[in-house]
Amino acid sequence: MDIATRVWNHKWKIDPIVRSLIDTDFYKLLMCQSVFRKHPNTRVTFSLINRSRDVPLARLIDEGELREQLDHIRSLSLSRGESTWLRGNTFYGKRQMFRPDFVHWFENLSLPPYNLERVGDQYELTFEGSWPEVMLWEIPALAVLMELRGRAVLHDMGRFELQVLYARAMTKLWSKVEKLRGVDGLAIADFGTRRRHSFLWQDWCVQAMLEGLGSKFVGTSNCLIAKNRDLEAIGTNAHELPMVYAALAEDDAALARAPYDVLADWHEEHSGNLRMILPDTYGTEGFLARAPDWLAGWTGIRIDSGDPAAGAETAIRWWQDRGEDPRKKLVIFSDGLDVDKILELHARFAHRTRVSFGWGTLLTNDFRGLTPENRLAPFSLVCKAISADGSPTVKLSDNPNKAMGPEDEIARYKRVFGVGKQERLEVVV
Amino acid sequence: MDIATRVWNHKWKIDPIVRSLIDTDFYKLLMCQSVFRKHPNTRVTFSLINRSRDVPLARLIDEGELREQLDHIRSLSLSRGESTWLRGNTFYGKRQMFRPDFVHWFENLSLPPYNLERVGDQYELTFEGSWPEVMLWEIPALAVLMELRGRAVLHDMGRFELQVLYARAMTKLWSKVEKLRGVDGLAIADFGTRRRHSFLWQDWCVQAMLEGLGSKFVGTSNCLIAKNRDLEAIGTNAHELPMVYAALAEDDAALARAPYDVLADWHEEHSGNLRMILPDTYGTEGFLARAPDWLAGWTGIRIDSGDPAAGAETAIRWWQDRGEDPRKKLVIFSDGLDVDKILELHARFAHRTRVSFGWGTLLTNDFRGLTPENRLAPFSLVCKAISADGSPTVKLSDNPNKAMGPEDEIARYKRVFGVGKQERLEVVV
Repeated sequence: MDIATRVWNHKWKIDPIVRSLIDTDFYKLLMCQSVFRKHPNTRVTFSLINRSRDVPLARLIDEGELREQLDHIRSLSLSRGESTWLRGNTFYGKRQMFRPDFVHWFENLSLPPYNLERVGDQYELTFEGSWPEVMLWEIPALAVLMELRGRAVLHDMGRFELQVLYARAMTKLWSKVEKLRGVDGLAIADFGTRRRHSFLWQDWCVQAMLEGLGSKFVGTSNCLIAKNRDLEAIGTNAHELPMVYAALAEDDAALARAPYDVLADWHEEHSGNLRMILPDTYGTEGFLARAPDWLAGWTGIRIDSGDPAAGAETAIRWWQDRGEDPRKKLVIFSDGLDVDKILELHARFAHRTRVSFGWGTLLTNDFRGLTPENRLAPFSLVCKAISADGSPTVKLSDNPNKAMGPEDEIARYKRVFGVGKQERLEVVV
Repeated sequence: MDIATRVWNHKWKIDPIVRSLIDTDFYKLLMCQSVFRKHPNTRVTFSLINRSRDVPLARLIDEGELREQLDHIRSLSLSRGESTWLRGNTFYGKRQMFRPDFVHWFENLSLPPYNLERVGDQYELTFEGSWPEVMLWEIPALAVLMELRGRAVLHDMGRFELQVLYARAMTKLWSKVEKLRGVDGLAIADFGTRRRHSFLWQDWCVQAMLEGLGSKFVGTSNCLIAKNRDLEAIGTNAHELPMVYAALAEDDAALARAPYDVLADWHEEHSGNLRMILPDTYGTEGFLARAPDWLAGWTGIRIDSGDPAAGAETAIRWWQDRGEDPRKKLVIFSDGLDVDKILELHARFAHRTRVSFGWGTLLTNDFRGLTPENRLAPFSLVCKAISADGSPTVKLSDNPNKAMGPEDEIARYKRVFGVGKQERLEVVV
């Protein structure tokens, strides 16, 4: 290492976890552009939610260090190279995916303030502000908390213990790659930014997938890694859109319409593989049953909760009912995947529809079993929009363990969306 | 990496495997000094012997590359820092272990020419010259052949396959370290230079042992690594001395005396832990039975062939017969050790005598099972003195599979040393 690099490294007071505003998921930027155009002044609050109560984040992570990391993120702005990439790159085969007015706004953006408070063994971390601004906090906030928790565990390990830890993690990932590489027609993308072990580890995982899987590895949701490694940036839209649209609905009729309004707005902007339906926010069955006909013409469906095979069967049945050929449609699985589940779903559905996988936490953070007491195992941390213009948001999903919102509002949503009994599935990550 | 380092690396026509004359076993230098004093003009021939005929070295290793590596070793001379280390360091608690006249000779040494010929799928590689010069070829020649064979296998692997290979090897070694670290009173040294996977890998193994075992790791036989890592250099003497002394014996009476002459010469020069008996060259039982009384006063015995537990029992019985307290004696095990054998021998003998382990090939080259078809597994390669002043050498050892020499000479030695039936044990490495 040359002297300048070493001196530079020592200039940092902290070792920043998030070093770029595009170290985030691609769908956040797609959604942000849409929100920036349609709802620039909607006031939204995002909040951290640790579903794994047994992981005492406030005992593991020093509040001062957490603030330093969050403050560092607030100091970031888009670099010239990043802006050039957003303006000049081809995404999903399309030039100028990001409009000049959006990139101009993004270039001048700093993330808004955060509110942090320790409550017992957990942190309350919230972000309030205009929707397009606060929504960009979600991914870096999650990445910071995951990585700080990891660092707390790594702190007490020796140099060779650390080397061996990563050696074991590499071995583990490569065994997965070896299981996948022989499977014909597989298509897998990295969706693991938010709950990754660390940025460098995610970057390693992406490179390993690339070498091991070749063209079966179709890209990464992480914009910074996509840019640095010259890969496809992957992603479409998320629950955030229907949740906020629904919270803004003035009555039950508007509420019932809200999820379709989201997709109507999306339809205006996007075509091809970006037209992916995420049907589970308020129950997949009802959503598809009441969907307008034009939605059956969309490219595919992303299955993000509930039993994934059941979800895919529902989607295939729905396409058949609407006169569409499922073999021309795309099903993306993205919920709690690991290699065996990927192989099982691929074997079951690859000949009946086009199948793709968004592999998240167990790609970029499978440190299960690698330390005593499993102290590096990933856990279920999310950061969600909890209110919009003063109204609480609600998510039902196809798994009641992933539901969120005030009880009376959950009851109202269930009534409006006709959601009956749901199967309760354990949320691993 | 800075530009100068990168340019420097690209200046090399080859990537030299052995880069220093002290990248060798410590006992070679101790013996060399002894030979330099007592037998400077004895003509000796060393020869490579591949006991693993199923490893077709000449098909795996390009002759040109092998010559380049050997030529590079011939271009080496002792650096100033290396010479300073030999002159100024404390070895086994003693200052000036190496006499000024010896170091002066060593400073001006270049290794003598080699003879290389391909015969079928194997190489014939021999070194002829004065004993103190040619004896220094043994370790670098072995290291070069082992590493070139490894490189031939590694050559076709991708960048991440390589990373994962080393990740698996690290994981494997660390599991061994974890098995050993909890055992009280353990003492282990690295004896793995000659059949290491590579220099960098041996260096990594040494550092891992150091971090994992702390003071239970007592040092390394590799002088360069001992110097660079500020560790104890470990080693005493080897079969080479009795083999050459025996070959020089003029009649059967002199032959019977030869192994004790070796130790008498050693006794003059060395004390303490350097007074280690290597009794198996012509059969341990007979050697100890006929040993002069002063030898029982030596510090310990190294067990390098045959069943190690049987060898240690023989040694303990011998000490008891000669009125010595075995609990004050040292037994060093150094033959084909791996972690389970170490644990077993330690449990059996640690309370009855002082026990130490010279862990070789399966410390620094345990790549068994890490590649398809096991192409990186270590194999049994040696480089031995095969003649001295025109007479062939003979080794019997406590395992007939390790015996070497012309048949009629083996018969004569067996008669002279009274060696009866021996148990045949598989030679793994």
